[in-house]
Amino acid sequence: MTEPILDLAHIAHAELLTPFPEDSLRFFVELFGMEIEHREGQSVFLRGWGEYQPYGLKLTESELPGLGHMAIRAWSPESLQRRVDAIGRTGYGIGWNEGDHGHGPAFEFTDPDGHRLEIFFEQDRYVPPEHLRPRLKNVPQRHVDRGAAVKRIDHVNVLASDVAANRRFAVEQLGYRLYEQIINDDGSEQGAWMSLSIAAHELIYTADHAGAAGRLHHLAWFVDTREEILRAADLFVDADVPIEAAPSKHAVAQGMFLYVYEPGGNRVEVTTGTHFIFDPAYEPVRWTQAERARGQAWGVKTIETFHTYGTPDVSGRPPGPPIPPTSQIPAIPDATVV
Amino acid sequence: MTEPILDLAHIAHAELLTPFPEDSLRFFVELFGMEIEHREGQSVFLRGWGEYQPYGLKLTESELPGLGHMAIRAWSPESLQRRVDAIGRTGYGIGWNEGDHGHGPAFEFTDPDGHRLEIFFEQDRYVPPEHLRPRLKNVPQRHVDRGAAVKRIDHVNVLASDVAANRRFAVEQLGYRLYEQIINDDGSEQGAWMSLSIAAHELIYTADHAGAAGRLHHLAWFVDTREEILRAADLFVDADVPIEAAPSKHAVAQGMFLYVYEPGGNRVEVTTGTHFIFDPAYEPVRWTQAERARGQAWGVKTIETFHTYGTPDVSGRPPGPPIPPTSQIPAIPDATVV
Amino acid sequence: MTEPILDLAHIAHAELLTPFPEDSLRFFVELFGMEIEHREGQSVFLRGWGEYQPYGLKLTESELPGLGHMAIRAWSPESLQRRVDAIGRTGYGIGWNEGDHGHGPAFEFTDPDGHRLEIFFEQDRYVPPEHLRPRLKNVPQRHVDRGAAVKRIDHVNVLASDVAANRRFAVEQLGYRLYEQIINDDGSEQGAWMSLSIAAHELIYTADHAGAAGRLHHLAWFVDTREEILRAADLFVDADVPIEAAPSKHAVAQGMFLYVYEPGGNRVEVTTGTHFIFDPAYEPVRWTQAERARGQAWGVKTIETFHTYGTPDVSGRPPGPPIPPTSQIPAIPDATVV
Amino acid sequence: MTEPILDLAHIAHAELLTPFPEDSLRFFVELFGMEIEHREGQSVFLRGWGEYQPYGLKLTESELPGLGHMAIRAWSPESLQRRVDAIGRTGYGIGWNEGDHGHGPAFEFTDPDGHRLEIFFEQDRYVPPEHLRPRLKNVPQRHVDRGAAVKRIDHVNVLASDVAANRRFAVEQLGYRLYEQIINDDGSEQGAWMSLSIAAHELIYTADHAGAAGRLHHLAWFVDTREEILRAADLFVDADVPIEAAPSKHAVAQGMFLYVYEPGGNRVEVTTGTHFIFDPAYEPVRWTQAERARGQAWGVKTIETFHTYGTPDVSGRPPGPPIPPTSQIPAIPDATVV
Repeated sequence: MTEPILDLAHIAHAELLTPFPEDSLRFFVELFGMEIEHREGQSVFLRGWGEYQPYGLKLTESELPGLGHMAIRAWSPESLQRRVDAIGRTGYGIGWNEGDHGHGPAFEFTDPDGHRLEIFFEQDRYVPPEHLRPRLKNVPQRHVDRGAAVKRIDHVNVLASDVAANRRFAVEQLGYRLYEQIINDDGSEQGAWMSLSIAAHELIYTADHAGAAGRLHHLAWFVDTREEILRAADLFVDADVPIEAAPSKHAVAQGMFLYVYEPGGNRVEVTTGTHFIFDPAYEPVRWTQAERARGQAWGVKTIETFHTYGTPDVSGRPPGPPIPPTSQIPAIPDATVV
Repeated sequence: MTEPILDLAHIAHAELLTPFPEDSLRFFVELFGMEIEHREGQSVFLRGWGEYQPYGLKLTESELPGLGHMAIRAWSPESLQRRVDAIGRTGYGIGWNEGDHGHGPAFEFTDPDGHRLEIFFEQDRYVPPEHLRPRLKNVPQRHVDRGAAVKRIDHVNVLASDVAANRRFAVEQLGYRLYEQIINDDGSEQGAWMSLSIAAHELIYTADHAGAAGRLHHLAWFVDTREEILRAADLFVDADVPIEAAPSKHAVAQGMFLYVYEPGGNRVEVTTGTHFIFDPAYEPVRWTQAERARGQAWGVKTIETFHTYGTPDVSGRPPGPPIPPTSQIPAIPDATVV
Repeated sequence: MTEPILDLAHIAHAELLTPFPEDSLRFFVELFGMEIEHREGQSVFLRGWGEYQPYGLKLTESELPGLGHMAIRAWSPESLQRRVDAIGRTGYGIGWNEGDHGHGPAFEFTDPDGHRLEIFFEQDRYVPPEHLRPRLKNVPQRHVDRGAAVKRIDHVNVLASDVAANRRFAVEQLGYRLYEQIINDDGSEQGAWMSLSIAAHELIYTADHAGAAGRLHHLAWFVDTREEILRAADLFVDADVPIEAAPSKHAVAQGMFLYVYEPGGNRVEVTTGTHFIFDPAYEPVRWTQAERARGQAWGVKTIETFHTYGTPDVSGRPPGPPIPPTSQIPAIPDATVV
Repeated sequence: MTEPILDLAHIAHAELLTPFPEDSLRFFVELFGMEIEHREGQSVFLRGWGEYQPYGLKLTESELPGLGHMAIRAWSPESLQRRVDAIGRTGYGIGWNEGDHGHGPAFEFTDPDGHRLEIFFEQDRYVPPEHLRPRLKNVPQRHVDRGAAVKRIDHVNVLASDVAANRRFAVEQLGYRLYEQIINDDGSEQGAWMSLSIAAHELIYTADHAGAAGRLHHLAWFVDTREEILRAADLFVDADVPIEAAPSKHAVAQGMFLYVYEPGGNRVEVTTGTHFIFDPAYEPVRWTQAERARGQAWGVKTIETFHTYGTPDVSGRPPGPPIPPTSQIPAIPDATVV
């Protein structure tokens, strides 16, 4: 047994690409309840009310939707350097940049599937403007009532043609701890749930069967309670948000979920959960195909797009969400659903 | 406009028939958290912790599952007599019985579909034994931790080959207020949601397409919060209870639901909701087939058995639940569900 | 035993007086999440998202805060007339008015303590503008995210120098059902909780020891879940709303509560609860002083203002809330509170 | 800036002493919903349903109540050795023991205030018996319905005559991260909230003004939702559990709380919260006396015993809880509380 690698702390932000930047921005502000912290070039920097860092989402105009990059903060300058050295040895390193709004120099690299990542240590702390100043000094910002009122970015789920290779890279080079896996009957890996903390998942790889590279499955934002997820569903229905999966509970990692599409066509999740992994020598849970076929925690089966759609889409669909808004789902004439 | 009929107050209890009485009893005690209040003959009388009456469920051994009878309490002796007179004139009256455990003489009758009903006024109040005595005197019994810890019987959903005829009988003879309906494209009625109170539904008729009579769709018990329904789902999964529909929110009547099967094969629901109808001249909401085909409130589609199965079953299935326990759903070998 | 009087259906709206109309309006819109439905003269008509009627609150500028009037809707024209006749015989009748925005002719009267009431039958139904149109047709309006997002007016608590006289008037003339009481050791009545429905309270009288007449204790608005009350508390703290009583559970009537002051100085409550009274012959629960001294359901003691302050205030305090905003409570220098 | 010490992972268990072992055991099993995992000598080993380790509580018969010891698990054998070496240099080391039920050799030491601690790495994993086997393989045990159904031990709050000295020891020798503090006006420290993870607190020191040493303020167990805390309060009231502080939300660390006394006289808490500290360079929040005097998050003031009582008690009270059961609080004759 080797000592655990405890050099990286958490995902500080993710950059989401959208071909419809105004609609996407309106979605994240009005329906996810985020604040615009900064604008620069073709990007808007957005934050959930509970983030200590200035922003958790960089929303950038782009021809195609998907993940721009994902940024991970290190525990210290020394631990950052250790990871830079290790990544450098893998050949996936790209090099240092000067930093971006709100954080210092970052080392860029890709994972084996080609997603862009960066790691850094120097991070500004959010200083709220007067109208967002909280009354309790241990929260970074006033509570928000708008839309889902998401608290902070929670996890990133990316697709990969070779889950095993990317899982190994994350564990061995970045220090992610592998908590759960789906192993196909042929021994190949279907998915890997990993974390840098006691949270049940912060980085997830699931299999991309489309033969594409560097795609995004979804970004997830945290709320404190399951009731907030149920509340968000009511608000989303009234706002014609396309709901892919109504609120229910995952089997893997035990999180409560609500999956919807933002106007750019990216899948986004509102999630919560307190399934913590405290065991420093945790033996990963390995699910078989048969076990996963039983559905989510309470038996709910997932709809097909969840297994086939990622961004950028490669199916030739028109841009935007792959499913229609809830309230406009075409009626099936002969159905007599109660 | 005629004056509303305000003679009946609420469903005081329902009798459920089961071919597996010991298993059903264990289910209602251990998993629904009910108390055995009395035993007599082939029946056990069970109560939810919040019922003022001694029991809300009479569980009776029977060759086939289904509804034994449903009992409605009147507002007063005078209002009871008015309803007896009215029902008598319809030809559906059967006659008075001497009462049963916990209540006085009741007038028996059937609805047009043949379900057995009775109405009465004299009702005992529950007096808890010492170990169930609550500390706050305005609740009838101590709070319960066991299983779903249901509070009280909430509503009865029965099947009928002619929904319109039964709906008219309930409205005109019993004074039920019609709150919601599903009207098929051919003008026939698919379902009717009715109540004697501000609660969104207490008596529901939905269409029985099997050509049978007097069948039960489900009985529902109330809990105070949605979180209790989510908690019940976790407990039911661990106890191998067959879950037909995982927790979600109904479009019609806006109730949160969780549908499972008790061992006798009857569908039972844990529900909550605060969608109240205060308008004394409420115009019933009429849903079209197309609208209902959009699924439940958050888009969830209902599984087939919900539309085809009632008790007693007429399909030739073996006795007991029509679906397997959640944890034993046969795996689909080629599925790669995430 | 006489037959119950089932002539009145529910409190349709209440008129609240405020010396600071702009601040009060901002409070109800931004912090209670209500919609402005109409403006007329010195009044603004406001609604919760779940009200079938156009509004539940008429907010009127006035020199002093307090209750303008309370309006109760009858079950039918005939039942309305029966109550008019009965009230007329008591000598408390004032006479018919032509109606107000949203409802037809109303019969005005006072209770023995001098509060103004009216009863009517003809009531408009709310028709939402396009931007508030809900996606599910059985709710009257889109869900609201703003502030506490109250659903509907729930109950009215008024002070009375003679609780017994007013309780008898409400029961005998209006048909209210008495569900709970506090009886002082000297036999006098401290409070009476009454309802026209299964809801645990819709009209409450508590003792006014100040020798004043016609005063208001508080108006309460309903939300669907306890989590919404906890959420509202967070929002209110950040907005410097004076919180008189933090979220907890009442012993009497079992409701979850959160009491705050609106800028006009009136006490208002956000509440929820599913303690329903289904027994048509309910025996009122009578609490002794000793029992009530044990505090609320979980032992919380109520602060002094709850027992001494009503509107209009008669203590000589400056206008506005009698307590400071939460975040500005003067620090006690020697306290070392953990 | 030095690199953070990331050698210890989490509090694996705590030993609680009780002069009334049978009553305490019944409390933790029936009211906290824990399982008896093992018995040995004068101790019973108890677990919450979500603990990966065999137990989180060792309950031991003793003349006086209080904390027996607290055990912290290291990240690896190497990290364990680093901490042993560091502690050894402080003079607070005691030496290695052979381990205890469920874990391997542990190094014993005290903090400056004299509380007994131990650190170890080798830890058995819980293997549930058949009747407690969960249906989802990523949870260690079936869900529990009994009582508060606590999930796992969450944090330990101990008293110390010199908070600063103990806080420094925890930070410098054990690697705890300091998240929040109360600093008295005279510069002395009133309390320190620390953690080994993103959880807002795992180890808390608060000032002991009694001149005693090594005392316990409280042990806390986690549940997943705030609704579970409200549910627990209802169950505790009915079971005559002495409630010191009804459910509300802390200002410091933002946790939802419910404080009660177990029969041995120790204060225990049911808590939940998702206030996570992701910032690896978190600047501790420092509260002043004036700020803390404003009460908890929603303004609730804490009762006196919370600031004066610890175990073992040094005030000369009779053994057992310092306050009576909720339902038996002596009535104050002249109170007319509504």
